[in-house]
Amino acid sequence: MFGKYLEKVRTKNPLVHCMTNFVTANDCANILIATGASPIMANEYREMYDISKISDGLNINLGTINKNIVPSMLLAARISNKLSVPVVIDLVGISSSKYRLRVMKYLMKNARFTVIKGNISEIKTLITNDNSKNGIDAREKDKITYKNLDKYITPIKKLSKKLDSIIVITGEIDIVTDGKTTYIIENGNKMMADVSGSGCMLSALITAFIGSKNINPLESVVASVIMMGIAGEIAYNRMTDLDGNSSYRNYLIDAIYNITPENIDENAKYEII
Amino acid sequence: MFGKYLEKVRTKNPLVHCMTNFVTANDCANILIATGASPIMANEYREMYDISKISDGLNINLGTINKNIVPSMLLAARISNKLSVPVVIDLVGISSSKYRLRVMKYLMKNARFTVIKGNISEIKTLITNDNSKNGIDAREKDKITYKNLDKYITPIKKLSKKLDSIIVITGEIDIVTDGKTTYIIENGNKMMADVSGSGCMLSALITAFIGSKNINPLESVVASVIMMGIAGEIAYNRMTDLDGNSSYRNYLIDAIYNITPENIDENAKYEII
Amino acid sequence: MFGKYLEKVRTKNPLVHCMTNFVTANDCANILIATGASPIMANEYREMYDISKISDGLNINLGTINKNIVPSMLLAARISNKLSVPVVIDLVGISSSKYRLRVMKYLMKNARFTVIKGNISEIKTLITNDNSKNGIDAREKDKITYKNLDKYITPIKKLSKKLDSIIVITGEIDIVTDGKTTYIIENGNKMMADVSGSGCMLSALITAFIGSKNINPLESVVASVIMMGIAGEIAYNRMTDLDGNSSYRNYLIDAIYNITPENIDENAKYEII
Repeated sequence: MFGKYLEKVRTKNPLVHCMTNFVTANDCANILIATGASPIMANEYREMYDISKISDGLNINLGTINKNIVPSMLLAARISNKLSVPVVIDLVGISSSKYRLRVMKYLMKNARFTVIKGNISEIKTLITNDNSKNGIDAREKDKITYKNLDKYITPIKKLSKKLDSIIVITGEIDIVTDGKTTYIIENGNKMMADVSGSGCMLSALITAFIGSKNINPLESVVASVIMMGIAGEIAYNRMTDLDGNSSYRNYLIDAIYNITPENIDENAKYEII
Repeated sequence: MFGKYLEKVRTKNPLVHCMTNFVTANDCANILIATGASPIMANEYREMYDISKISDGLNINLGTINKNIVPSMLLAARISNKLSVPVVIDLVGISSSKYRLRVMKYLMKNARFTVIKGNISEIKTLITNDNSKNGIDAREKDKITYKNLDKYITPIKKLSKKLDSIIVITGEIDIVTDGKTTYIIENGNKMMADVSGSGCMLSALITAFIGSKNINPLESVVASVIMMGIAGEIAYNRMTDLDGNSSYRNYLIDAIYNITPENIDENAKYEII
Repeated sequence: MFGKYLEKVRTKNPLVHCMTNFVTANDCANILIATGASPIMANEYREMYDISKISDGLNINLGTINKNIVPSMLLAARISNKLSVPVVIDLVGISSSKYRLRVMKYLMKNARFTVIKGNISEIKTLITNDNSKNGIDAREKDKITYKNLDKYITPIKKLSKKLDSIIVITGEIDIVTDGKTTYIIENGNKMMADVSGSGCMLSALITAFIGSKNINPLESVVASVIMMGIAGEIAYNRMTDLDGNSSYRNYLIDAIYNITPENIDENAKYEII
């Protein structure tokens, strides 16, 4: 079912333009290669047109943004919109910085995002326009569980429809919705939260998948989220007593490199609600 | 004795605001997670207040600075001072760049640093105001050994008192002083010098420890320096014939991930002078 | 024959000033240490003189450049020219960005490059002044093989003479020429293309080798290209079924750390044409 989307990435070898934070840029580049895509990192305003026009997807990440990069991000997003190139944005840190929330609203006003991804605190911030005292991780009380799932689903679907964007929420369970169909994904391992940039890497993968010109964009996004989760499980099984989060990061990217469409089909754990 | 400070970090899970160089930012983020802290990297002037007010510690690093980031650094340091959030600065490269030394003096004039960390050449540069022909490593003739220790201790303690800062000097033996009590730490392994950013990672750890609201700031800094040294020893013991500095870097972060308070208490090698 | 150039690097411990992209800066720093050199990363205009005057080589990389860094790059290149410090430039992305090509032409007009490195599409772009629709990888139809080698050699030698630069072209076979003598190097492994920044790392190594004041600059560049290729072979032999491009990256840097002059002499595969 979802394995075929990975096959598509490996055949198409999409070029993913990353405007990502400097903290996790290297991991994003390597995980894109691991999945069968090609990364290009470029932030200079003067080359946005050249890069956008040859890219199959644009991945914007709000971590470590500064005022100089915002015009480049908007320009790249608008050109991509015009050329029907999908744009994926990762809301890193908008729940703790009014500036980042302001930038996100400015970008949303002037460009459309094919996919908006964040943890539950970040998506809540986007819905409520309210920054709460928090770091970059999801707040404990915000965490999505099967118990509180219902109360979250309605506002998230509403947001998705309003923005005409696929919404991806990561956490112990991941949610992907286009406002009509909603997937709950259970793959993954809690150790993923111990790797700086595992979320940024997922954003990059989402862009590669939705940038591979699949017939079904929602399913292609779901496929990438499932694949990342399965990679997290494979990586965890490889851990020895001496290994920590640094080795786990390597195992995670290695797992993406070796994963097959069959792995995905056999190990996908999801529900449609 | 010192293990309890790690316990405190793991209980408190401090949020560390890193204004670090782009070369080693990823390693700093992952080692912070490994020790039980949370990293947030942010450099934009417009979000300094939001980030500073939720952070438990600020880590400034002079590697790869440029003129645009200096106002953000000063603002974050001043807000942190006001909010009694500890500020740790790493003097990367001030012994080879008059510009970085000028920036450091400008920051010192306008903000207070809870901890100042450097190798012996960098600390000497700060004391003498003199840049010598050198790279980012300590000069051979500057290296602290038991033979020349005495002649260094007095000026370092004087600097510490003058600035009201804990001074950390890294090298084959590490020195930590608050101007009154001075610790000489012997943990570590020479292979640590072969990892780009092992010093930056230590700065991040120091910030996590001193940011965990410990009763004794000096001891908390000493604890982090000891822990890093022990991690360097554990990592070295894991090396195989084919391993080099890249695997060693992973093992170092992995070791921080797995280290226990008991490991620290059992393996700490230090002297108070 | 070529092993002695590595010996020279390890004796001299050259300081390499890297003005490299933020994506691969950490890998460049660690591979420099692995080979026996010392890295210093610095981009601020105000410190270019201080850094250039103590450096043994300058490594400029066009990946992720922006308009603010260009004046610093030119200044560092000009000071290095004046001080007879070799300057190595890596043409990352000039085949897909008119802006980067423009910057390269501007730099070439105002400074001399000791070594110019790129894949065949990038070097062709420099020769023809033409950007083709492409990412950062070499285009399939451009790939150098033994069949089409002849038609490439003449224009590349001409470019080398015209610019008074050693030209390095990487790919399945690598070419190094000073316009008179041309080396064809066959060491390497195709897995190297799956590591983001393996090309940037080679640029850094080239700078370390040519910065070690060798009598024969061309041979010192050839030695670094051969060493990187052999490291790629060693790293590949270490791969297990679970390993992917992330572990391979670590093995690559580890291999550079452990490689000996004898390894190079015994395993070098090259031809002079």
